[in-house]
Amino acid sequence: MSAAFNVSAVDGAARTGALTTAHGVVRTPAFMPVGTHATVKALHPDEVRAAGIDILLCNAYHLALRPGIELIERAGGLHAFMGWDHPILTDSGGYQLVSLAEVAAVDEDSATFVSPYDGGRLRVTPEEAVRNQARLGADVLMCLDHPVAHGTAVKKVEEATLRTHRWAERCRAVHPGGGRLLFGIAQGGFEAATRRESARVISGLDFDGVAIGGLSVGEPVETMLAMTAASVEEIPDDSPRYFMGLGTDAELLAAIGLGVDMFDCVVPTRLARNGSALTPDGHVSLRNAAASDDLRPIDPDCPCPACARFSRAYLRHLFQSGEILAHRLVSLHNITHLARLMKGAREAIRDRRFAAFREDRSGRIGVSHR
Amino acid sequence: MSAAFNVSAVDGAARTGALTTAHGVVRTPAFMPVGTHATVKALHPDEVRAAGIDILLCNAYHLALRPGIELIERAGGLHAFMGWDHPILTDSGGYQLVSLAEVAAVDEDSATFVSPYDGGRLRVTPEEAVRNQARLGADVLMCLDHPVAHGTAVKKVEEATLRTHRWAERCRAVHPGGGRLLFGIAQGGFEAATRRESARVISGLDFDGVAIGGLSVGEPVETMLAMTAASVEEIPDDSPRYFMGLGTDAELLAAIGLGVDMFDCVVPTRLARNGSALTPDGHVSLRNAAASDDLRPIDPDCPCPACARFSRAYLRHLFQSGEILAHRLVSLHNITHLARLMKGAREAIRDRRFAAFREDRSGRIGVSHR
Repeated sequence: MSAAFNVSAVDGAARTGALTTAHGVVRTPAFMPVGTHATVKALHPDEVRAAGIDILLCNAYHLALRPGIELIERAGGLHAFMGWDHPILTDSGGYQLVSLAEVAAVDEDSATFVSPYDGGRLRVTPEEAVRNQARLGADVLMCLDHPVAHGTAVKKVEEATLRTHRWAERCRAVHPGGGRLLFGIAQGGFEAATRRESARVISGLDFDGVAIGGLSVGEPVETMLAMTAASVEEIPDDSPRYFMGLGTDAELLAAIGLGVDMFDCVVPTRLARNGSALTPDGHVSLRNAAASDDLRPIDPDCPCPACARFSRAYLRHLFQSGEILAHRLVSLHNITHLARLMKGAREAIRDRRFAAFREDRSGRIGVSHR
Repeated sequence: MSAAFNVSAVDGAARTGALTTAHGVVRTPAFMPVGTHATVKALHPDEVRAAGIDILLCNAYHLALRPGIELIERAGGLHAFMGWDHPILTDSGGYQLVSLAEVAAVDEDSATFVSPYDGGRLRVTPEEAVRNQARLGADVLMCLDHPVAHGTAVKKVEEATLRTHRWAERCRAVHPGGGRLLFGIAQGGFEAATRRESARVISGLDFDGVAIGGLSVGEPVETMLAMTAASVEEIPDDSPRYFMGLGTDAELLAAIGLGVDMFDCVVPTRLARNGSALTPDGHVSLRNAAASDDLRPIDPDCPCPACARFSRAYLRHLFQSGEILAHRLVSLHNITHLARLMKGAREAIRDRRFAAFREDRSGRIGVSHR
């Protein structure tokens, strides 16, 4: 399907490979840190790169509102503007349709958003969503889709899914080419049959990759994994599969085990800013009194700049003092943790020992989704 | 006076040299960024070093309150705790005596502080102030002094100055040795005669350096410079001279022109967090609308990581979005700016062209203190 994607090894349903973009190669399975406003919160792009990250996610909708597409275009595109010369995937704004606060109206032709900054309206058609992302200079563009919240009535889910399909066709018709990749987004709510149907329709539109959208929005983890499995069934093996908005170590490994290749999530950097550090043995809270005289690093096996030099006691002191360096160091640690998890998964798949790797990593934090 | 200090060139009253400490050499004139809570706000220690900074200032009083001297001692000292393997000067807490909110009482034996964190009391004698700094592992320790605010009655100024002298003797008597340096602090209020007298007394106590305290606290800049000149007259040429709490480019160059060697100031990092960037041509406000489509760097001649890659428009976008990277990049720029100003001054003094250097740099921002 996608000439840009190459699977180099499989282990069960899990696979490892590479997605080639205009700004370099993304090794899969890949975790994409989120840089909504053209920055991964608290981090310099060189730090993100050094952590082992190949690709960032930015949000075309937010950037269109502020600072505006025109400015970024004049700056030479998003890569130059934000100082990151590696792959960028942009989200279209579809995800914002789940959040009623930011949506004025959705009709057949377009979505109209309400700016969270100044209350202004922004009307976006599927075609404009793609063109905006192309103007930003993104390497991987996402279709405008219509996800719904968990608990939405079946009739509404069906309408939104069918609209997602029609919008996908319109997005596909304006594929910008020129080395840019355009991914479709499968929806389908919380029934396996509708999930399969949506993945089948989207996969039939000849995108460069297919995303699984509208999951990890509050449903039970078993439902999420069942819906993922149903979607994956209908996405061809030669297409990259991207799960939008995941997740914990155990969830990521479970999805990789089902054949998913790409992930993004705001949680690791959000947790970091709240003082929560990820380790193979679970979260370490650096705001807890227990850290106050703990001279160990967050994770003695982690090579990140936080673990290489600073103690939990120092990091707790920084959090207690409201110091920005705390946010920097723990954000960098959490991103490094996930980059290393992906690297471990890639190596395990290549060596045909992914099940054992996953069992070990999931077992250590007391969560298993076999 | 101080075996640790060596003047290598003089140009008028200005001089350049080196202060040798247990953690390396400080090239003078030197600017010390302030790391009150064992971190220069928003910056990683390696960034501060790469900006051309030789020495940091930390605050022993604040660190004694939080996280506590004992923890830092157990962590292997302040250098290990904060990940900075270069010189550190610690302030004693004397400066906090100007701020009534943090002072419960000052008597002949000690100062009693009120913790701004939890309201608890901390009583510190001059001897304890020195011992606390030695326990932290500081390279340059400061005496406990008693500065007063501008506008304080002459009688009160005299009392505080005489107490500063008696406390200096007590501090000197507990000089920890072992390669650590102990600096006295001259006070004397806002009269040249009392300034001279205080500098003479402190210089007579055989410290490793003499600081000029209690200035830049609201007095006119002409008064500040006259008091500096009076103090410098009485501090021997072979002693390092440290002006506590300065300042702007023009003020720093004026003080260097009078024979001062060391400076610290919270302003460059505080300005940065407010969106104000220092340049040889004055401040650039990155919060102003004027920056919103300005694709130039802050200062095209600056080699710092902010100027090397990012535009004013990007930095403004980060400030508008409340992104931490804005604080990081502009803080690093402002520190770099001052490190380069000091480097320029050192080279100009060595080449006997300091007056022209100062005139050029002060003239460009429309301020001259000849």
